[in-house]
Amino acid sequence: MDKSLELHKTLKGKIEIKCKAEVNSREDLATYYSPGVAKPCIEIANDSSKVYDYTMKSNTVAIVSDGSAVLGLGNIKAEAALPVMEGKSMLFKEFSDINAIPLCIDTQDTEEIIKFCKQIAPTFGGILLEDISSPKCVTIERRLIEELDIPVFHDDQHGTAIVTCAALINLCRLTKKEKSSLKVFLSGTGAAGSSIARLLNTFGITNIVAYNSKGMVRLDNYKTQNFVVRELVDEKLIKLSESDNLEHAIKGCDVFIGVSVADLLTEDMVKSMNVDPWVFALANPNPEITPEKALKGGAYFVGTGRSDFPNQINNVTAFPGLFKGILKNNTKITEEIKLKVSYAIADCIMIDDLSSTNIIPDTLDKSVAEKIADTF
Amino acid sequence: MDKSLELHKTLKGKIEIKCKAEVNSREDLATYYSPGVAKPCIEIANDSSKVYDYTMKSNTVAIVSDGSAVLGLGNIKAEAALPVMEGKSMLFKEFSDINAIPLCIDTQDTEEIIKFCKQIAPTFGGILLEDISSPKCVTIERRLIEELDIPVFHDDQHGTAIVTCAALINLCRLTKKEKSSLKVFLSGTGAAGSSIARLLNTFGITNIVAYNSKGMVRLDNYKTQNFVVRELVDEKLIKLSESDNLEHAIKGCDVFIGVSVADLLTEDMVKSMNVDPWVFALANPNPEITPEKALKGGAYFVGTGRSDFPNQINNVTAFPGLFKGILKNNTKITEEIKLKVSYAIADCIMIDDLSSTNIIPDTLDKSVAEKIADTF
Repeated sequence: MDKSLELHKTLKGKIEIKCKAEVNSREDLATYYSPGVAKPCIEIANDSSKVYDYTMKSNTVAIVSDGSAVLGLGNIKAEAALPVMEGKSMLFKEFSDINAIPLCIDTQDTEEIIKFCKQIAPTFGGILLEDISSPKCVTIERRLIEELDIPVFHDDQHGTAIVTCAALINLCRLTKKEKSSLKVFLSGTGAAGSSIARLLNTFGITNIVAYNSKGMVRLDNYKTQNFVVRELVDEKLIKLSESDNLEHAIKGCDVFIGVSVADLLTEDMVKSMNVDPWVFALANPNPEITPEKALKGGAYFVGTGRSDFPNQINNVTAFPGLFKGILKNNTKITEEIKLKVSYAIADCIMIDDLSSTNIIPDTLDKSVAEKIADTF
Repeated sequence: MDKSLELHKTLKGKIEIKCKAEVNSREDLATYYSPGVAKPCIEIANDSSKVYDYTMKSNTVAIVSDGSAVLGLGNIKAEAALPVMEGKSMLFKEFSDINAIPLCIDTQDTEEIIKFCKQIAPTFGGILLEDISSPKCVTIERRLIEELDIPVFHDDQHGTAIVTCAALINLCRLTKKEKSSLKVFLSGTGAAGSSIARLLNTFGITNIVAYNSKGMVRLDNYKTQNFVVRELVDEKLIKLSESDNLEHAIKGCDVFIGVSVADLLTEDMVKSMNVDPWVFALANPNPEITPEKALKGGAYFVGTGRSDFPNQINNVTAFPGLFKGILKNNTKITEEIKLKVSYAIADCIMIDDLSSTNIIPDTLDKSVAEKIADTF
């Protein structure tokens, strides 16, 4: 049997509840349960903001998924998504001591998911949306950010964007290149791709062309695409390509960022980019191009989602610290907050220590979350 | 500051998440999260019953409350109910090692609560409904039992009924009285009262008259009462009283069971009951009659909800073991299952050890849950 499968079977759940106090005496029972528990109940009933003082809410996050876009597995539904959400809960606890509760739900309807999240809001200090298909994930997150007074974050959209941006910050520091001069080729305009385009603009990279399953995003095809793509154009977050051809459009670009499909990029395409290009091949589990090929093509920097190569771009570098920070201050998550987190991640590596294989902190470095939270 | 309030403030949540394994290496990350986690996901996607093998579902319960009927505090809403649900979660963990997740929700609509519970069902092995007002709690529980394939239990309805019935089993054993001969006066026909009437009938006590805020339940008033009361009459679970007066109706009864209001019963009323009556004065925090007065009135047995008197009737004696048993077998909770739990609780005391002050196991006896579960 596969080792991961076997361990999942042995554990029967990767997380459990732990009591912060024991219940052994009548006094314990009377303190933590009836009748003593009535005291904090009354305090909160009189002033609902006190729920942050007397309950788990202040350090507890809901991980909500409808199972519609799980890892690379697609729409596998709520139950099959549960192992992923439990894993995410482990990461929350291990990296930032936040209590995260997996809630895999039996609806894939946009309005129902929004309603569900609003219903659970009293119990949680924040909501992490996870593995919900695009473009509805964008609609759900926006509505919840607007309508709820607790922070809401869709990791699949922004996690990769924040860590990628952190790498770009350090690449600019290391190579002394001006961010405003960089020309970016973005492959993928779904949840992650569109968020990358937004955050790069906030950072100051405004020269971006984009490619997706319909080809290059151009004047003659963008209007028939989903609202996420149309917005990128309408809000001038990407530039319309004049080429209808990936190979042609990538020539002379400084940066390739792929959140798309395996083996899209060839060594020759990398060769055709500007000198010493930066390649983010983030498709999972198989990147758009292997680091070996990208380096042979002349790439100065290669980042992937994989842990077996240098420069792993992994959401776990961002979300534990981000949530630790926002829970501390009950902050709304804006583009500026995300960029602040990117800078905090970049700052984890001293300038003198930067190199093309040491651009972002190690995925397993548990001090990063604390450093991010300290900037809030 | 009140001690309970102070401890709640210090803890900021009485429960937290604990990981069953550490994430320190790339191998850990690859095993418990991406890419290894895909393996159990695929197994479950192919056969949803395997969610019990690979996830927390098999030992995790949702505690769902809308905050509409919390302790004696009434409709204090979701946030203010959270300390109670956290306390309940502690009891689950401490008494039966079950992981229970508080979910206080921002809706008090019957259909919305039903829908919510159905949406979370993929994640949980069972649902405990808590502190939801009557009679909608009855509707919600019935619909969910019918429409979900995981066990659903409303503790406020059945917890007291199960423990009260356990006490009656042992009182019959101790006094050699025949259950079929017992005449019961039931005060309260809400969530708990109606469930007591049902379970007593299943047990074999069929001679019950009932009293509520409208007076004695009689032919001339029951039809205008809520469906819970009408059903008790229509299904012949209680007998219509011929008296319109509590004092008159209680005369000659063998058992008083109150789940109603403080100080309803007087010493003289107890005196008017059959010889050596049994008095369950379960109103919280102040009983229908104090044990001192009931004993002065001639009661052979007095049970209350209070921990400072003998014979505490507390739900915690029942629900941890009940859930441990039903989660083990994914059993639906029927009247027969509840009665089985009553017998398991009663059996915790050896017949030779029974006395009028030792009728049910101590509330803090953590071995009871295991003994209940073993009977499943």
